[in-house]
Amino acid sequence: MRKSLPIFITSLSLTLFSSLTTATSYDSNQKVALDLTQNALKSDLAYKITESLTVEVGPRLAGSPQNAVAVDWAEAKLNALGFDKVYKEQVVVPVWQRGSAAAKVISPYPQNLVVSALGGSVATPKNGLTGKIIRFESLDALKHASHKDVEGKIVFIDKKTERFKTGAGYGQSVGGRVNGAIEAAKLGAIAIVIRSVGTDHDRMAHTGMMRYDDSINKIPAAALSAPDADMLDAMLTRTNEVELQLTMTPQSLGTTTTYNVIGEVTGATKPDEIVLLGAHLDSWDEGTGAIDDASGVAIVTAAAKLISELPQRPARTIRVVLFAAEEIGMLGGKAYVEQHKDEMAQHYIAAESDFGADRIYRADLKVAAGVFNEAQALLASLTAFGVELGDNNARGGSEVSLLPAQGVPVASLRQNGQDYFDYHHTPNDTLDKVDPEALAQNVAVYAQFAYLMAQSELLLRPLE
Amino acid sequence: MRKSLPIFITSLSLTLFSSLTTATSYDSNQKVALDLTQNALKSDLAYKITESLTVEVGPRLAGSPQNAVAVDWAEAKLNALGFDKVYKEQVVVPVWQRGSAAAKVISPYPQNLVVSALGGSVATPKNGLTGKIIRFESLDALKHASHKDVEGKIVFIDKKTERFKTGAGYGQSVGGRVNGAIEAAKLGAIAIVIRSVGTDHDRMAHTGMMRYDDSINKIPAAALSAPDADMLDAMLTRTNEVELQLTMTPQSLGTTTTYNVIGEVTGATKPDEIVLLGAHLDSWDEGTGAIDDASGVAIVTAAAKLISELPQRPARTIRVVLFAAEEIGMLGGKAYVEQHKDEMAQHYIAAESDFGADRIYRADLKVAAGVFNEAQALLASLTAFGVELGDNNARGGSEVSLLPAQGVPVASLRQNGQDYFDYHHTPNDTLDKVDPEALAQNVAVYAQFAYLMAQSELLLRPLE
Repeated sequence: MRKSLPIFITSLSLTLFSSLTTATSYDSNQKVALDLTQNALKSDLAYKITESLTVEVGPRLAGSPQNAVAVDWAEAKLNALGFDKVYKEQVVVPVWQRGSAAAKVISPYPQNLVVSALGGSVATPKNGLTGKIIRFESLDALKHASHKDVEGKIVFIDKKTERFKTGAGYGQSVGGRVNGAIEAAKLGAIAIVIRSVGTDHDRMAHTGMMRYDDSINKIPAAALSAPDADMLDAMLTRTNEVELQLTMTPQSLGTTTTYNVIGEVTGATKPDEIVLLGAHLDSWDEGTGAIDDASGVAIVTAAAKLISELPQRPARTIRVVLFAAEEIGMLGGKAYVEQHKDEMAQHYIAAESDFGADRIYRADLKVAAGVFNEAQALLASLTAFGVELGDNNARGGSEVSLLPAQGVPVASLRQNGQDYFDYHHTPNDTLDKVDPEALAQNVAVYAQFAYLMAQSELLLRPLE
Repeated sequence: MRKSLPIFITSLSLTLFSSLTTATSYDSNQKVALDLTQNALKSDLAYKITESLTVEVGPRLAGSPQNAVAVDWAEAKLNALGFDKVYKEQVVVPVWQRGSAAAKVISPYPQNLVVSALGGSVATPKNGLTGKIIRFESLDALKHASHKDVEGKIVFIDKKTERFKTGAGYGQSVGGRVNGAIEAAKLGAIAIVIRSVGTDHDRMAHTGMMRYDDSINKIPAAALSAPDADMLDAMLTRTNEVELQLTMTPQSLGTTTTYNVIGEVTGATKPDEIVLLGAHLDSWDEGTGAIDDASGVAIVTAAAKLISELPQRPARTIRVVLFAAEEIGMLGGKAYVEQHKDEMAQHYIAAESDFGADRIYRADLKVAAGVFNEAQALLASLTAFGVELGDNNARGGSEVSLLPAQGVPVASLRQNGQDYFDYHHTPNDTLDKVDPEALAQNVAVYAQFAYLMAQSELLLRPLE
């Protein structure tokens, strides 16, 4: 269904005008989108932005001093690129410092293991804690264990993460990371270690957020690298009596204020209507956050910048939101929804880039069912860049996944996630994992998507 | 030329007997070698040995407490496998403890870098040292620098290691690691960091031995991971004023005694003549030494064990030497040559497995020129396993490369080293990098080689 034009135009002239301009604007929009794409594919802007953020800022855990540097960097970068408006919005975040983490098999075969504290974990006692390992295939298996078997031990969740283009393996294994400490503590465990949620075989642990339940004892939680999880398995095939020492010194230090950083390319005719392109500025603290999510920051920033270089601004405003604190619970996204609740109706559509730097292979939407085919047809030109047109079940990804509940249509421009979980949340998330050509393809797709949506005359609401 | 038989056989009968037995034994040797190979390809013994050493011992730096555990493991393993003789021989080694290593860009962009102390490095002052980086493309470029430019700075040798099947990239870049500290100190540098000698892009530094010259100031030396070397490069393109803080706490603690561990399958008819199969028991301390060199230990041990399971012992003795201290300067090999100098003439031929766990693709020899073609012909059956027959310029590899100078013929059974320097000397040298099938191919080749050499009637000496 077409969006209605202002009511002071008579019904007859409306009909004439609408069908004339629609035909013309469709062609001219497609022409502009094509030019935009050609420019995007030739541009190294996104790579330069990724390089700048990883080299000049590096790791930027929400709440850390480096995160404040990242906020300054983002404001300066958006200003330098000539965005029409650049501003920031407060987000209160907890402060968690990693400290050190060490794990050691005490018996039967003394060996150091490579571990990383999970985000938010409490510390062990100063001199560490020691306990026998009890292994579970999965979080579910742990849930079915008995208090008698687990009490006083260190739980080891040994779930492997399978490799898929969609990244679906992550969802299948991340439960142990997020909720393992709660379930283990319920059964009297003194700590939990998990096989890293990752698809690689590098001797690096994958960190990531974990949760506590205030009514349940908080126990230290760490991830083991895949080779170290294999090592425990090999020892456990020899004996059930594997004793581990774990020593971790993370600290929770209250809260602090950080910022969502926002840049806008103001719409020519509908400046109050927003096409939101999101990414997150924060990262985990052991890599330089190149694929998670400097590349996303770079993709959406470069896409909006390229649109701003067109001879004419598109109808709607392109709003780039660099969210403050995705990694520690989408706090930037939650703050954004709260702070912009009166403006939600003006969000035309939103998408977020937060799945690395590999090519986009599919575009899904979440729009009114009645307009899905037309909306998809608008994006038909994406297929020239290897992007298949998907379904109407998009969730939008990361912070943007909070928006459909507010009635906001979203798109998922899906990246190939085959290798994403090799590096995700590890020291190995560095610039060399970013392919400049794949990054440029992302920019081309986002620029085309954002431009076409900013010009679209479809009414994408209401969502079901 | 054929080896002469005992002189109490008359010249005529000698000729007859020799050609008869030679023809017969050639065929029957080939038949036995073929059976041996089939057994090797079906056997998981080498993988089990690799697993055992990496899981039950793990890292085993020469001179460390874990190295003593490895020596006990090796004696026990060779005894358990039923070797005819198992013994050990003293090797005095320096004791060097890694301690911790941290590097941090202080300005212009504060960031932590991943480093590893080079083996043998001195410590920094307790609170670290700070200096401006001066970058060189190579050790050679450093040698041509001026005292004025280098004095008071931290030298950064940024030589990349190229990937080759032969591993030739290592030789082209390892000079900076070994001699960089001497050359940098000559010019007044306060420390040296090198781009890791490795072909990977993992955020792990490659350690390895370095040298000092007692007449020149000893400065701390560390390796940077490849992504961290890239990071320094990116900063150096922005400014020459990159300041680094380096804090390392290695310690040199005198010397201790460790052991070459030796197992023999005693020859049936020429027990004093030796076919030596070498590998090294020690490893670096950050991985579990799976490809360097648990796999070598496993390959030569399994090959000899399979030969010991034949209905009949071969003519010569198969001597498996698990050298004590390859990584820190082939001290085990040097001790072996010294301790066995009176026995060098009885070493028929030697080979060492110390290049990972990938397949053998080529066999080179170093034997008397006049017998090269016949010796190579003896090994023709190796071509059935994808092994090309090479030249007569083998060096023998690692400790065994010390033997040609003692007149001992050697073979180089060359492994595909394409990926070897991705993991070499890093925490990533773990069991999961070992492919059981490739390992079995190695055992098949070593077993066949050792058996045929133990039965050979060729005189392989003198070397040129």
